[in-house]
Amino acid sequence: MNKNTDRVVLAYSGGLDTSVAIGWIAEQTGREVVTVSVDVGQGGEDLDVIRQRALDCGAVEAYIADARDEFATDYCMPALKANALYEGAYPLVSALSRPVIAKHLVRAAREFGASTVAHGCTGKGNDQVRFEVAITSMAPDMDCLSPVRDLALTRDVAIEYAEKHSLPIETTKHNPFSIDQNAWGRAVETGFLEDLWNAPTKDVYTYTDDPTYPPLPDEVIITFKEGLPVAIDGAAVTPLQAIQELNRRGGAQGIGRIDMVEDRLVGIKSREIYEAPGAVILIEAHRALEAVTLERLQRRYKRQIEQTWGELVYEAQWYSPLKRSLDAFIEDTQHYVSGDIRMVLHGGRATVNGRRSESGLYDFNLATYDSGDTFDQSSSRGFIEIYGMQPKLAAARAERLGEGEGF
Amino acid sequence: MNKNTDRVVLAYSGGLDTSVAIGWIAEQTGREVVTVSVDVGQGGEDLDVIRQRALDCGAVEAYIADARDEFATDYCMPALKANALYEGAYPLVSALSRPVIAKHLVRAAREFGASTVAHGCTGKGNDQVRFEVAITSMAPDMDCLSPVRDLALTRDVAIEYAEKHSLPIETTKHNPFSIDQNAWGRAVETGFLEDLWNAPTKDVYTYTDDPTYPPLPDEVIITFKEGLPVAIDGAAVTPLQAIQELNRRGGAQGIGRIDMVEDRLVGIKSREIYEAPGAVILIEAHRALEAVTLERLQRRYKRQIEQTWGELVYEAQWYSPLKRSLDAFIEDTQHYVSGDIRMVLHGGRATVNGRRSESGLYDFNLATYDSGDTFDQSSSRGFIEIYGMQPKLAAARAERLGEGEGF
Amino acid sequence: MNKNTDRVVLAYSGGLDTSVAIGWIAEQTGREVVTVSVDVGQGGEDLDVIRQRALDCGAVEAYIADARDEFATDYCMPALKANALYEGAYPLVSALSRPVIAKHLVRAAREFGASTVAHGCTGKGNDQVRFEVAITSMAPDMDCLSPVRDLALTRDVAIEYAEKHSLPIETTKHNPFSIDQNAWGRAVETGFLEDLWNAPTKDVYTYTDDPTYPPLPDEVIITFKEGLPVAIDGAAVTPLQAIQELNRRGGAQGIGRIDMVEDRLVGIKSREIYEAPGAVILIEAHRALEAVTLERLQRRYKRQIEQTWGELVYEAQWYSPLKRSLDAFIEDTQHYVSGDIRMVLHGGRATVNGRRSESGLYDFNLATYDSGDTFDQSSSRGFIEIYGMQPKLAAARAERLGEGEGF
Amino acid sequence: MNKNTDRVVLAYSGGLDTSVAIGWIAEQTGREVVTVSVDVGQGGEDLDVIRQRALDCGAVEAYIADARDEFATDYCMPALKANALYEGAYPLVSALSRPVIAKHLVRAAREFGASTVAHGCTGKGNDQVRFEVAITSMAPDMDCLSPVRDLALTRDVAIEYAEKHSLPIETTKHNPFSIDQNAWGRAVETGFLEDLWNAPTKDVYTYTDDPTYPPLPDEVIITFKEGLPVAIDGAAVTPLQAIQELNRRGGAQGIGRIDMVEDRLVGIKSREIYEAPGAVILIEAHRALEAVTLERLQRRYKRQIEQTWGELVYEAQWYSPLKRSLDAFIEDTQHYVSGDIRMVLHGGRATVNGRRSESGLYDFNLATYDSGDTFDQSSSRGFIEIYGMQPKLAAARAERLGEGEGF
Repeated sequence: MNKNTDRVVLAYSGGLDTSVAIGWIAEQTGREVVTVSVDVGQGGEDLDVIRQRALDCGAVEAYIADARDEFATDYCMPALKANALYEGAYPLVSALSRPVIAKHLVRAAREFGASTVAHGCTGKGNDQVRFEVAITSMAPDMDCLSPVRDLALTRDVAIEYAEKHSLPIETTKHNPFSIDQNAWGRAVETGFLEDLWNAPTKDVYTYTDDPTYPPLPDEVIITFKEGLPVAIDGAAVTPLQAIQELNRRGGAQGIGRIDMVEDRLVGIKSREIYEAPGAVILIEAHRALEAVTLERLQRRYKRQIEQTWGELVYEAQWYSPLKRSLDAFIEDTQHYVSGDIRMVLHGGRATVNGRRSESGLYDFNLATYDSGDTFDQSSSRGFIEIYGMQPKLAAARAERLGEGEGF
Repeated sequence: MNKNTDRVVLAYSGGLDTSVAIGWIAEQTGREVVTVSVDVGQGGEDLDVIRQRALDCGAVEAYIADARDEFATDYCMPALKANALYEGAYPLVSALSRPVIAKHLVRAAREFGASTVAHGCTGKGNDQVRFEVAITSMAPDMDCLSPVRDLALTRDVAIEYAEKHSLPIETTKHNPFSIDQNAWGRAVETGFLEDLWNAPTKDVYTYTDDPTYPPLPDEVIITFKEGLPVAIDGAAVTPLQAIQELNRRGGAQGIGRIDMVEDRLVGIKSREIYEAPGAVILIEAHRALEAVTLERLQRRYKRQIEQTWGELVYEAQWYSPLKRSLDAFIEDTQHYVSGDIRMVLHGGRATVNGRRSESGLYDFNLATYDSGDTFDQSSSRGFIEIYGMQPKLAAARAERLGEGEGF
Repeated sequence: MNKNTDRVVLAYSGGLDTSVAIGWIAEQTGREVVTVSVDVGQGGEDLDVIRQRALDCGAVEAYIADARDEFATDYCMPALKANALYEGAYPLVSALSRPVIAKHLVRAAREFGASTVAHGCTGKGNDQVRFEVAITSMAPDMDCLSPVRDLALTRDVAIEYAEKHSLPIETTKHNPFSIDQNAWGRAVETGFLEDLWNAPTKDVYTYTDDPTYPPLPDEVIITFKEGLPVAIDGAAVTPLQAIQELNRRGGAQGIGRIDMVEDRLVGIKSREIYEAPGAVILIEAHRALEAVTLERLQRRYKRQIEQTWGELVYEAQWYSPLKRSLDAFIEDTQHYVSGDIRMVLHGGRATVNGRRSESGLYDFNLATYDSGDTFDQSSSRGFIEIYGMQPKLAAARAERLGEGEGF
Repeated sequence: MNKNTDRVVLAYSGGLDTSVAIGWIAEQTGREVVTVSVDVGQGGEDLDVIRQRALDCGAVEAYIADARDEFATDYCMPALKANALYEGAYPLVSALSRPVIAKHLVRAAREFGASTVAHGCTGKGNDQVRFEVAITSMAPDMDCLSPVRDLALTRDVAIEYAEKHSLPIETTKHNPFSIDQNAWGRAVETGFLEDLWNAPTKDVYTYTDDPTYPPLPDEVIITFKEGLPVAIDGAAVTPLQAIQELNRRGGAQGIGRIDMVEDRLVGIKSREIYEAPGAVILIEAHRALEAVTLERLQRRYKRQIEQTWGELVYEAQWYSPLKRSLDAFIEDTQHYVSGDIRMVLHGGRATVNGRRSESGLYDFNLATYDSGDTFDQSSSRGFIEIYGMQPKLAAARAERLGEGEGF
């Protein structure tokens, strides 16, 4: 294949920057550009409209894929099993969509004869790393290209180019919000929140209503089978439907708003706003069911695995060997995570107030203080004697060495 | 010292069970009983009233201590620095008070010539282990005694004994709630919640109002210095005052209600209800400030330390060597954790919406996408190349072995 | 089944203590005793001889099982994949055999109608816990019994009983060594080593010759496939054969002697001597192959998993849920652990000096400093800039606050 | 300060590459060069000779520092307390020296008015990262420069330059070994070992004699105080003396040879040979003493801390916040690590065979099986009952769901 005529595959959103990038890349590299647009539940324009715009902007091919179910099932559900919240709060909204988009980028590259994959990310964020590492973790021979970072395609340049070439795309000098959204949630960055003391304003949010003035409480029962949501209020759902339904009901109650300062992969701290009602509700419910069904040591260890899983996925390692081995651990833990969780959704809160499971480890007769108690309290003395042995020996040592607590 | 006339120190709450235990222990062991009552902010009766009752019930000495500030400063504040939430939710309310009470028990034992310490806990809970391991971790020569567990002092026996001996204490056949409370929070167990599907009823709560119908939002600014709250809305506070003030304001908003299934130290799962408005608000604020002030790897590692810290304290290891070494780690991380956190308290939620710190690592110029950006985007290509090296090599291996992803 | 006539299954070694236990249990409990003897490669007497002795001593049934291959394949090989060394040194010799013996005990109990399992362990060691927890982790309804601990069957009592009843077993007043051995290694405790300053004497060892005066160096090539040894010096081997062959050759070179102070499950420290030439050689080789074939982060994380795996197995959790989930992680990592390791066995050392693997991640062209180097050094500046960002920001903070290093 | 005349500080070894770099940097950047040479026990030429050569090669200033004691005390001893072995084997020889050299580089830069620090490392190794991250972790305003990587100073260019300018330094076309050495050990890379199947040849080693033909066994007693070696065979030693003495005696026995494949910070695997007799002996002895003196849970957790500590130091994070917090943990654990360890050094092995400590947790009376045993075996039943509770409940669940083990 002639390197000079070899194609470039471009992740195409349909917006100004990537629309301009089609021609820009072609001009700068002398190669044909194939666009790839993937529906991960971000809403907005129809894929066919986006496809046509790509062709109108000069793409030689325009690949589209409705990956909403794939995204929900193969990317969001593992995150749910992992109760994945980066730095304790962020449900990995964008971090989860990059690997599935990258998969379609590589597939399109193979199909249309491209050896370079381009994306619209800047050079200071996480997503450039996620795209590029995901791509070379599947296709190690592939080159990556960021027109913004590598070909100096600034926003001003893009506007000028679009106007000069009369591209069929609206140009606006300034959009205060930088947004990424999909079925699992929505991420917003905006200039005035770069001052950490500023509070978010109402116009930041679209997935959620204001929790300050909520409608009446909404009770929901989520049924899980081996870690996955399979029914809501008794009606069977697919993973995608579960997320969508809870986005809707949770969003109405203002659940899942997140305002945090996070550590980016590239070493800087940044302020981020997220909305993820469905994700937050599902994770809360899943955790509550695990509390009933996982054995104590397994659950403890899983919490550490979860933290690492979240960090790996945040940090572009979706297709890495360690991520896969952690998945094997997590998958093994989910065998008994089946049952019902009842929650009240209200005013920004998703509160679990009931759980039932055929496969739980909760034993009423051991737990109860009423009649029927089967716990043998006489075991406790021996247990305490041995359990407390080492700190007791340590205390005896301190006394022996004249280093006692000194009352 | 003659073993037969050697005294027993008893942790004394002033309630029925421990009031009866004074005479019961004396009868069963032939030893004099010294009571110890410690104020950890549990409210209720005056210490002097309790002291007098102990003496009226037959105690030879009655030691009392107002340990509220000691408890807040030396036990709750380390838990705050550790963001301690056992199994991700429980702020260790009772688990924190046991070590300070144990300290006074040992002190009283030394002072009044006792070699046995008794407590009112049953044989199937955590607190028996916490008392006994804490005691032998300070005084390895001390014997421990639980009248309920070791001397068959059931509730029915206690009522009968109290009535027979006309003890100055009310006897009720059945109290549906088992409660432990202190400045850091309140713990409730009750029979009908042993069915995990039952929701808590309103009468379970006393530290918090119903979050469903909250008053107007309450904005609060908490100032931290090296990890500790030192001012609220600009007014200087002690640790105890910080907790009390936030218990009051958070409680009014219904913040800090926890309904969970937890793993007890003795190997069983149990349903627990907690209220801890101040603890939950302080931990949320402290975490938000750490997000701004801790270096990324330090913060990640601290999260794992925090989990272990919480497990150790839950599991009776307050005075253990590992707990102390973890404290040294945590203390080192708090040097820069200074600044202001602004929160809105409302309807069960404590939401951080502003942070400012002279000692933060957030760098506006690195983070901003506006003019003034100092981040050198050209570094990113090299970073990604090296950062993604090993997963890329793993992908090349898979291809080489014919095990590629297969698009 | 009538509880009083229900049978007891006894783990039977053929030695004095368990031979006496047959009659002793029958007398003390009024139940029939079924013995179970399992060959895990401990050498010594033939199983049929042991079986006959059991019957002669009063057993109503005597179950025997040659579990050598089962032990090697299902118990030792997972330990090898986990590079399992408790506290960094002990290859879990006895800890691995207890679960397989327990499995046969439960199987025999089901087959012969027993609801109690007895074993010859004392009340202060690990093995009582391993047997009993393993048994109730498979058969939660089963009762456990230790004649030594629970029925006061001391050694003196045993000798007296054996002599009185003329049992067909030798009685010796005192054996200085307490020994447990199997295919994976040998464990020795002995009185004079309870003084930690005493060095082991030559008569402690039988699996290994003195490494001080070794024969000529012995070079060996071990071939692994997905983490398992499949050939030695080119000749195919089963797991059991691999262990036996390396026990022989490693033992001749004095490899695998371990002298350590370890933390027992029951909270005390004890001095232990082990010999495990095959285990030590296999783990060393396996680790060296993993260094070539595992991705960096995966390998790091696996080291932590390994530590926990070793602690769990040491601490009687072979059949626990967490152990199984860790196995799933470990199994996933072994897919590419195939290749050859060349070692020199000599004078107590097993030294790897060559490795080759088709599935390795070592890339000569990236590693070499000679011509052919494909590493793009220009990536490093950008990498370092971003990699060092957070400590640099931390340094700038320290300077800003006047807390610089102060040269 | 005028940027064009601002000085450059250069880490100067006295060898060909850095001798040429003096003039090369001056030419390429137009700035004056100040050299810095630090003695970390690498042996070889006298510092004054090196200083004169630097001046002869064109340096405007030549800073020298004898940092041997500083290196041993402030860098090697923390590594000993951390039992630091990267990837389980490498005692961090070069990784420890970079931070101390960097400290002197920064000090010299401050003293002589430089804002750039240069070093002789290539662009594909760890040391470039270690130097540069260490420097900006102390002096965030400092620029870093690698003449090899950034100014195209290849070996061929260096030789040509040296000959053209008649620099007072020997030029050799090819040295097969790339060596770095200091008091803590010696690192060797060499072309023929880049084939992983090749065994090291004898000429690779200089710190150690061949262990195959050792002298007579050498018994040594090392005395530790709070984690540090303070005497050898009863004679007081400084940290540096301890290392040197054990390098000598251990080297004579061929102890501390390491042949490994390691994961470099820049994402590639490489073959490395190390010699570190003193480090290996000290770590082995220190671990053995910790086995006696550290409480079990503390020791376990420390092992995980140790792994992270080693990874951080290997990966250039000596001056990072997390490293410092880990040091606080480790320091806290060392309070009781005092006592004597007796070892036999022989034929490549350093074998501990005796330990004694006033501050140990080993309790003869608890451990012994002889008379005097104070362990209360009756505690064990209760302990096992509660300890085995959760796996037992898990087994009952499996049975209930028809998923039992199936004998």
